Amino acid sequence: MSSQIAPITLADLQRPVRGRLERVPQELHRIVEADFGLIAEVNSHLFQMQGKMFRPTLLLLADEATGGRDQRTITLAAVIELIHLATLVHDDSVDHSVLRRGMPTINSLFSHQVSVIMGDYLYSRAVIELVRLDDLEPLRVLSRVTNQMTVGEMRQLLAHEPLEFSEESYDLLIQAKTASLLSGACEVGALRASPAERSALRRYGEALGMAFQIVDDLLDYVGDPGVTGKPTGSDLREHKVTLPLIAALPRMDAAGRRQVQALMDTPEPDDPRIGEIIGAVAEAGGLDYARERALQLAQQADGELDALTPSPARDALRAAITYVVDRRR
Amino acid sequence: MSSQIAPITLADLQRPVRGRLERVPQELHRIVEADFGLIAEVNSHLFQMQGKMFRPTLLLLADEATGGRDQRTITLAAVIELIHLATLVHDDSVDHSVLRRGMPTINSLFSHQVSVIMGDYLYSRAVIELVRLDDLEPLRVLSRVTNQMTVGEMRQLLAHEPLEFSEESYDLLIQAKTASLLSGACEVGALRASPAERSALRRYGEALGMAFQIVDDLLDYVGDPGVTGKPTGSDLREHKVTLPLIAALPRMDAAGRRQVQALMDTPEPDDPRIGEIIGAVAEAGGLDYARERALQLAQQADGELDALTPSPARDALRAAITYVVDRRR
Repeated sequence: MSSQIAPITLADLQRPVRGRLERVPQELHRIVEADFGLIAEVNSHLFQMQGKMFRPTLLLLADEATGGRDQRTITLAAVIELIHLATLVHDDSVDHSVLRRGMPTINSLFSHQVSVIMGDYLYSRAVIELVRLDDLEPLRVLSRVTNQMTVGEMRQLLAHEPLEFSEESYDLLIQAKTASLLSGACEVGALRASPAERSALRRYGEALGMAFQIVDDLLDYVGDPGVTGKPTGSDLREHKVTLPLIAALPRMDAAGRRQVQALMDTPEPDDPRIGEIIGAVAEAGGLDYARERALQLAQQADGELDALTPSPARDALRAAITYVVDRRR
Repeated sequence: MSSQIAPITLADLQRPVRGRLERVPQELHRIVEADFGLIAEVNSHLFQMQGKMFRPTLLLLADEATGGRDQRTITLAAVIELIHLATLVHDDSVDHSVLRRGMPTINSLFSHQVSVIMGDYLYSRAVIELVRLDDLEPLRVLSRVTNQMTVGEMRQLLAHEPLEFSEESYDLLIQAKTASLLSGACEVGALRASPAERSALRRYGEALGMAFQIVDDLLDYVGDPGVTGKPTGSDLREHKVTLPLIAALPRMDAAGRRQVQALMDTPEPDDPRIGEIIGAVAEAGGLDYARERALQLAQQADGELDALTPSPARDALRAAITYVVDRRR
């Protein structure tokens, strides 16, 4: 949203922890290894859809920015990515998604059954690995996070009633669904830090995560499909109510609100109709409102970092905020 | 299978731990409590399908038979039942089952999505509760058990090729799918016992669990639908290969084996055809073989109990073996 010459890339953020980050995929392989053919097959497909490792990056930066005291960070970073992966596998199954990161999803490539079981497999492997570390603290944080994420998924199922879904419900939804894991990643990276630093990083991750989801929801309205990889207006097409619409609705007239409700009542709305609503939401200030809210949260996240001693890793955590709000996909 | 006058009932086994067992449902309610409407609604439906509490019974008896030293057994028993419940919710979703214990399943009453998310919710609540006990030991046992169960579910998906599915694969399947949780229940009930008692109870649970599944698979061939609550031959109808068929196949002639393969290749075989195969399996000695194997495992389980001091609880664990092999549903 700022207009820099050279936008911040993920690689920029990762520089202070590059060496450790490169060891995370191998650690992940070790943790999920299976001698049963079908599971090994699904695993190797999952490794091909390797993500951006944003959560492991945050975890490693949180450790680095608080003195780099934890010897277990590579394992913890792998576990964070594993929990994220398990969630994606179940999410894709729940949503009947066909593609993820440009690759066929497990449910489309294997079956719905395999997805449900595989998500359970991955998550229980994450728990086994945390138990192996012989410390209840990471488990305490991450079991709560995982539970929050399931509550977020349930809230998502009900986020289809535009005239009833409030901004407060939206905040609870994105906190649970998205911010909890980013917050957990930062907190688990700071388990050896002082309580003040640990709390600051937890709150940083929470604000960053909420901003992350709002930007995601904004990109669905204004993103370039060639860059985001999904058509504009997907959320409206699937009748998902997000912040731009929530903010716009009270500023629309009765006719506009009726139009929104009509779109929500149409099983498969067409592109011109979706385009109309996007236009109406923009005109009513819904996009500006959501952008403003993301920037507020970004500022909050930034403020939390003042609790840490200056370091290249802290700079990278600051840069992560810009990365999140400026991203185009 | 024995021909007693008065068969052993579940209530008989539960007598030595009746008082504690009665407190388990309330503890379960506390653990899964949710302030989000949809989750609370699914929870209250789950409570109505309240099972037989066989796993909590084993856990409490294991504790009682080894001195009753553990103060946490009511919570642990609730967690065991909760893990069982989470597994059932995902299993029903994977199998698209409509009924469970005579009640509509979560997937049929709510949706497939709600089932997947709810299973995750229940399991993560179980982990949170185990963390709260501030002891890694129950988590160490139960995270492995949960992972084994997912491997068992994967094996189940592949148990549809009668001419390729060996008895060894069947043993691995029922160990993972069924015996692991019964074994885990017994072991977690004996965490304060001596290592020898703990191991004996783990092995007792494993043998008991395998016998339990073999009897289940036998009942599918010979059970009275009025008592079991499901039609005879369901497994054959769904092309599930179990021990009676595995044992019968090598003793059938080529024509018989072709008939079996033909049934497996028929999408929806009719009752007369299923009846024919059941007859052929019986004639080839498949039912006798499976019965014999269940009795061997029962003997093994019985032998393990010799490691414990005589007590009413140990007697109840012995009676549990008879209960498992004699049951009609």
